[in-house]
Amino acid sequence: MRTIDWNEESNSVMLVDQTLLPKEYRVIECKTLSSLCEAIKSLRVRGAPALGAAGGFGIALAAYLSSAKDMDSIMRDLKVAGKAIVSTRPTAVNLGWGVKRVLNALSDAYDVAGVRDIALYEARAIADEDVYINKLIGKHGAKLLEDGDTVLTHCNAGKMACVDWGTALGVVRSAVEQGKEIKVIACETRPLNQGSRITTWELMQDKIPVTLITDSMAGWAMRQELVNKVIVGADRITQDAVFNKIGTYTHSVLAREHEIPFYVAAPVSSFDFKGWEGSVKIEQRDPDELRFFGSEQLAPEDVEVYNPAFDATPMENVNAVITEKGVFYPPFLLDEVLV
Amino acid sequence: MRTIDWNEESNSVMLVDQTLLPKEYRVIECKTLSSLCEAIKSLRVRGAPALGAAGGFGIALAAYLSSAKDMDSIMRDLKVAGKAIVSTRPTAVNLGWGVKRVLNALSDAYDVAGVRDIALYEARAIADEDVYINKLIGKHGAKLLEDGDTVLTHCNAGKMACVDWGTALGVVRSAVEQGKEIKVIACETRPLNQGSRITTWELMQDKIPVTLITDSMAGWAMRQELVNKVIVGADRITQDAVFNKIGTYTHSVLAREHEIPFYVAAPVSSFDFKGWEGSVKIEQRDPDELRFFGSEQLAPEDVEVYNPAFDATPMENVNAVITEKGVFYPPFLLDEVLV
Repeated sequence: MRTIDWNEESNSVMLVDQTLLPKEYRVIECKTLSSLCEAIKSLRVRGAPALGAAGGFGIALAAYLSSAKDMDSIMRDLKVAGKAIVSTRPTAVNLGWGVKRVLNALSDAYDVAGVRDIALYEARAIADEDVYINKLIGKHGAKLLEDGDTVLTHCNAGKMACVDWGTALGVVRSAVEQGKEIKVIACETRPLNQGSRITTWELMQDKIPVTLITDSMAGWAMRQELVNKVIVGADRITQDAVFNKIGTYTHSVLAREHEIPFYVAAPVSSFDFKGWEGSVKIEQRDPDELRFFGSEQLAPEDVEVYNPAFDATPMENVNAVITEKGVFYPPFLLDEVLV
Repeated sequence: MRTIDWNEESNSVMLVDQTLLPKEYRVIECKTLSSLCEAIKSLRVRGAPALGAAGGFGIALAAYLSSAKDMDSIMRDLKVAGKAIVSTRPTAVNLGWGVKRVLNALSDAYDVAGVRDIALYEARAIADEDVYINKLIGKHGAKLLEDGDTVLTHCNAGKMACVDWGTALGVVRSAVEQGKEIKVIACETRPLNQGSRITTWELMQDKIPVTLITDSMAGWAMRQELVNKVIVGADRITQDAVFNKIGTYTHSVLAREHEIPFYVAAPVSSFDFKGWEGSVKIEQRDPDELRFFGSEQLAPEDVEVYNPAFDATPMENVNAVITEKGVFYPPFLLDEVLV
């Protein structure tokens, strides 16, 4: 199934619990708004596009659960629900975007039943569009991959970060679908190990050959000529830089040193037309992410830690940006992509 | 105390159990050869110089434990002991070197008591020389550090890898001793986390400011101008390359990109005068090191893993090699160092 979807029979939100991967594949059913909020907060569902859909489905769920009998009451309920959803991860831009898009669509409704119908219709549209966009990204990006290529990737820009298919891994999937033989090297992606936990798992599900390495092995793997291309996703793309999971910048420097193409695959919705590398504040995460892994202690419990969630890769290190609108080769103006 | 030492009262080997760090600092006493072998095998003591001393003290321990009454019998016992010690970690060159050095010294002995005396004398000489060499490395290297520098290091080339003081961290210690204010950024060093477990711990013991990062953050830390120098240790230095813990090569590429000096601190005993980058076989370690951390599962249990223990940094990426004989600036001939 998709990473997140609507259950028509019980009018609830179904999602793959990613915190249990790779040990267990379990689909959970969120029948209440609080269970959905809990799932978002504890990263059972994660990844910018998937969170957009979660926000949309959250409003649909709230519409179905509301006992309101008139328009004013249900709209009040949905605004409260929207705030509750957004507050689970305040820095996740797509979550708020999904909530807002569904709420905005409701201006067409004229009764409570209509609100429910339109909310669900719009939430599903978000999910379907995400899959459609990823397939287009895949189609454009697959042209850059040759039969026999080994692609190094970082973090999880795959199906599990989206509704389906994936961005960086979507490019790989599309190339494989075209009959090309593609192997993937997945960097484990410290400190939260999305690469080792999720990327390896989803590629193994699809029988795409994958080899796991530590992030620190990327340079050596390149020097040993084990890598032909690098493809990563993006959380935000400004005119001068690509913001993505910490470690991406290092891979870009290594790729250039070894003359390996470095590609970014992301929807146009990741474009930040006004931001610059220096203007984006990078979230510092909990030091305990480096001090512990689950029940295991990795470092002195009072050691000082530097733990930025993202880094910025300057556009000079990027060979191409793959979007649903096509492949763009820096230097290019972000605005050109929209034309 | 030193990382490893002789206990005169009980005639046994004392060592810091590094597998318990950073949770617990415990000194264990090896009164039998099998307990010492177990300690080596399970990495309670690790690091090339420390293992040289462990090999030497192991022969001394065997000499004290032997019930032999004549020279032939005790020498037979010690050869058996030597083989048992070396077989615990067959690829650790220094372990065999320490064993051999003490065994060779015994040719001067003419009775069983003399064997014991000479074995212990020689084992202690190995340990003392290691400390002396590290202090010289520190003295020479400290000249390269300026007041206010932040040094990035990888793995543990510190006191806990040696008998005392350390190589890369010894340089930091010597600079601090001279009154310079030095900060350290310690890379956690996946997959076994010697950086987060041991380097941070030993620097905190000495009140030297240390910040822990994941290996993947090194590039971003450099781009953010948080790093002035990189200093690492070495397992082996050939004419064209430095072999050290996996991840070192990546740091060297990043350092050059950011015009940050990249230094290697190691004793001349690490020099391999005949080897070349391509001639050294790199040990592939257990895939489970990336699939699990203690009781925590990080990846699918059947995922394919690439897990080289070391990588090779070409000498072009090295700004200086710091040895007990002085500081050498590539390109230089390894032989010159001996003159």
